Amino acid sequence: MCNTIRSILKENTKLINKKIFVNGWVKHIRSNKLQKFVIINDGSTIRNLQIIVKNENRKLNRGTFLKVKGKIVLSKGKKQNIELLAKDIIIYGLFKEKDFQKTILQPKKHSFKKLRQQSYLRFRTNFFSSIMRVRHNVSYLIHKYFHKSGFYNIQTPIITNYDTEGHSNLFKVTTLNLKKINDLKSDFFGENAFLTVSGQLHGESAALGLGKIYTFGPAFRAENSNTPRHLAEFWMVEPEVAFFNLKNNMYLAEHFIKYIIKKIRKISYDDLLFLDKDNKIFNNINLILNKEFKRITYSKAMKILIKNGYQIKWGEDLKSEHEKFLVENYLNSPIIIFDYPIDLKPFYMRINKDKKTVSAMDIIFPQVGEIIGGSQREERQKILLSQIKYFKLKSKDLEWYINTRKFGTVPHSGFGLGFDRLIQFITNMKNIREVIPFPRSPQNIYT
Amino acid sequence: MCNTIRSILKENTKLINKKIFVNGWVKHIRSNKLQKFVIINDGSTIRNLQIIVKNENRKLNRGTFLKVKGKIVLSKGKKQNIELLAKDIIIYGLFKEKDFQKTILQPKKHSFKKLRQQSYLRFRTNFFSSIMRVRHNVSYLIHKYFHKSGFYNIQTPIITNYDTEGHSNLFKVTTLNLKKINDLKSDFFGENAFLTVSGQLHGESAALGLGKIYTFGPAFRAENSNTPRHLAEFWMVEPEVAFFNLKNNMYLAEHFIKYIIKKIRKISYDDLLFLDKDNKIFNNINLILNKEFKRITYSKAMKILIKNGYQIKWGEDLKSEHEKFLVENYLNSPIIIFDYPIDLKPFYMRINKDKKTVSAMDIIFPQVGEIIGGSQREERQKILLSQIKYFKLKSKDLEWYINTRKFGTVPHSGFGLGFDRLIQFITNMKNIREVIPFPRSPQNIYT
Repeated sequence: MCNTIRSILKENTKLINKKIFVNGWVKHIRSNKLQKFVIINDGSTIRNLQIIVKNENRKLNRGTFLKVKGKIVLSKGKKQNIELLAKDIIIYGLFKEKDFQKTILQPKKHSFKKLRQQSYLRFRTNFFSSIMRVRHNVSYLIHKYFHKSGFYNIQTPIITNYDTEGHSNLFKVTTLNLKKINDLKSDFFGENAFLTVSGQLHGESAALGLGKIYTFGPAFRAENSNTPRHLAEFWMVEPEVAFFNLKNNMYLAEHFIKYIIKKIRKISYDDLLFLDKDNKIFNNINLILNKEFKRITYSKAMKILIKNGYQIKWGEDLKSEHEKFLVENYLNSPIIIFDYPIDLKPFYMRINKDKKTVSAMDIIFPQVGEIIGGSQREERQKILLSQIKYFKLKSKDLEWYINTRKFGTVPHSGFGLGFDRLIQFITNMKNIREVIPFPRSPQNIYT
Repeated sequence: MCNTIRSILKENTKLINKKIFVNGWVKHIRSNKLQKFVIINDGSTIRNLQIIVKNENRKLNRGTFLKVKGKIVLSKGKKQNIELLAKDIIIYGLFKEKDFQKTILQPKKHSFKKLRQQSYLRFRTNFFSSIMRVRHNVSYLIHKYFHKSGFYNIQTPIITNYDTEGHSNLFKVTTLNLKKINDLKSDFFGENAFLTVSGQLHGESAALGLGKIYTFGPAFRAENSNTPRHLAEFWMVEPEVAFFNLKNNMYLAEHFIKYIIKKIRKISYDDLLFLDKDNKIFNNINLILNKEFKRITYSKAMKILIKNGYQIKWGEDLKSEHEKFLVENYLNSPIIIFDYPIDLKPFYMRINKDKKTVSAMDIIFPQVGEIIGGSQREERQKILLSQIKYFKLKSKDLEWYINTRKFGTVPHSGFGLGFDRLIQFITNMKNIREVIPFPRSPQNIYT
């Protein structure tokens, strides 16, 4: 079996004099009269392996894929402990030097935008392969956390007939001819079909049967926002728990996010160190781990903001300048704002005793703002119906959802985490398009 | 903290005389003059907990959610070792008996179709909650297998502008008004956008950078097939590995699927036992685990079929009767058929030396037929271009994909597993709609 560079560097000097195979592509070459020094990488780690090549006349251009058979020896260089003394080399399709110059693999400063334009090659850059390994590890930790905590992973539908969040911009799904005037009845589903904006309503029904569930899937917004924080297609994690109130929900969210961030610091240490150009990544991580998230009601937050000179009234939504002030200046920790005015949140959140606010919560992080949004759900059928009326929604469309309160009902809560935003926070990337393999945004679907 | 029924039954008699909380809903009640025997379930396991309730005048209707505080005692019944002697009970929204009668929770024989019609309540049935727990465990095992084997999980795009498999029926994604004649330029992406049928092409470019990757996400087919084996929306697992030929690919696929099936037998034993009404589930599992998958070329399979009287010619696709004969009668094991005629497979598969076949492989299981399809990919740019021409595809649309062969190239391979079909095989369900929470099929999108 072939060794990965990760495993070779892990075993390190234990492999001295061992014969091995290794695969990879050429990152860098230099030569002297006696030999070539070929640096290769295989994507398994940010670190490279140096190959010593003697008596080789074929071209070993940068970017070219190789299979190398050889012996691990102690390195005379200062940068590495071990290197591979090549015996046989298989060279796969040669990468022409003039083509290499055209690509983002050419080792010089490329703009993030240019890297995205060759998104199919980004995986071979140090920067993006690091982000992808971090992304994988976070994804795995999410599954692990929930599995160990007794949650069941549920695949909620991608194609739905309902707009969960209300007045979102939805993508339609159709098999009709867009250049004709159509009758919806002849469409594939015979009615309006949209790409989901959230798996929550379906997730609730699953939690009422299985107790604790989570979703991990794509969600979509057809917003015409070309911002560094928005994607038309993104991935969401949505846990939902029966017999759970807002307080339990806040506890779960904090515990969960701290687990992920604590573990990723360890598992992805090499990649995070490489990405940490501004010395911010580990600072950000410590900001999350060393503080208890401060809980504060929306009303209290308003009072503080008004007292500190902000022009804002109760009932208005917090803007990022307000969040920034609260998190970075006033409270100096991640915060959980809860009990929001009814009109700021969707219909399904539980009405509080004051009849003005709902049991909603948002977790606000430094740098990135809202990272988690959740709530206790309205489990009382009568109040849910009056909320549906208040928000001018059609109860016919929500019949099945209302039935989950009619056929037995119980308090339950959950939250949504924007997976890509979490990766953006952990890797300290300015633009969210740097953390997803093939970003989708208005007018942009090249690869 | 509250105990799940799964954890209570696991600790069992160790909990005798311990005071605990438990949540759940009423599955069954019987009473005598002295007390009520209330059977509850909480979704954490197929097994139930019996609650002994004394001095309780309130209604504890079936389906109603309860929180119970009490003490674990030895049971006098024969069906269980322990039971909970209730001290306090919180009753959440009462489930009216006349409503209960209308639902699939009423304990009598319901057709699978009726269960699907109340899909939002299916999670509370023994049958479906078992399937969902198995589904979760298989999903977790898939992540675990690949993670431990050094694969990175990649989210390939759901919205794409290309039909990977060729001549598939695609869902369009649009923000245009379907009842008007539209100009595509004013659509969200400014061009045709479809729901993905496979993440493979994108997955390949990721594997060329990261070495070993896998995807786990939804895929879509707008086929008008109302069959027990088709879903319009389904979940796919697609590993892809650089420096990998077809032989390596077959080895990985067999090793992977056997790992999953071996582990799920253990982890989900209770649920599988419950689902195993016809004594087939564990037989099927053993059929997979006890046999080495027999490898056979398409051409050899043809010879065998023709010799055994089947009316079929080289170049034609195998039908399920042919697969059944080979798997269940002739070879009596799961089989891997490889080296298919060029015309039966998509453009991206690697042409063999005979110039008539491609390095494709399909794994055929008893009962369900094809469970995995994969191939070595055509890594030679020239041959890829001639294949694109042969299949009458537009090379302009595939420019970025062709570039992954221009900018360095290497042999690589991968396969696709229909996740829902695997669950269908493991749980021995006749209809695939029984194994996914909210199935999507033509003219059907109620919940």
